[in-house]
Amino acid sequence: MDCHSMESEAVIYIGNKAPIKYATAVVTEFEKGANEVTIKARGRAISTAVDACQISINKFLEGVEIKDIKIFTEEMEDRNVSAIEILLART
Amino acid sequence: MDCHSMESEAVIYIGNKAPIKYATAVVTEFEKGANEVTIKARGRAISTAVDACQISINKFLEGVEIKDIKIFTEEMEDRNVSAIEILLART
Repeated sequence: MDCHSMESEAVIYIGNKAPIKYATAVVTEFEKGANEVTIKARGRAISTAVDACQISINKFLEGVEIKDIKIFTEEMEDRNVSAIEILLART
Repeated sequence: MDCHSMESEAVIYIGNKAPIKYATAVVTEFEKGANEVTIKARGRAISTAVDACQISINKFLEGVEIKDIKIFTEEMEDRNVSAIEILLART
């Protein structure tokens, strides 16, 4: 019995570290057995999210593609902030 | 005869101005008769592109939706840079 069979999805939240840090985190999730990894970011971190996505796909991962990209607005307490979700999945 | 019938597409390139500037530019293109407007950005301007997109859709435009989002890597002379293209279209 594969106890890890349910762990097929993962989420990486992008902060203000270097893109390579998050790219590595994405790669790790796929190596742990995830079939899909979602990269989530808000505001200025959106650029970092796209960088991390591109680095992970172009430099490290094979057989993984961008399955979906969503952009939307999140309502915070005192303001609205743009957000992105990039869904990566094994082909 | 409508001389503007061919002007159905437009491109807005995002730089380092405030998002509202580009949101206004997007709105202007639709008001001039564009059926589709593509927002293009590279590097740190990607966050601004998403902001401009969300502002134009949520604050100014009706009957316009996000039709497609592409993210990719552009090879520059000395480095690679992430890029985004957001396609807005009349519904």
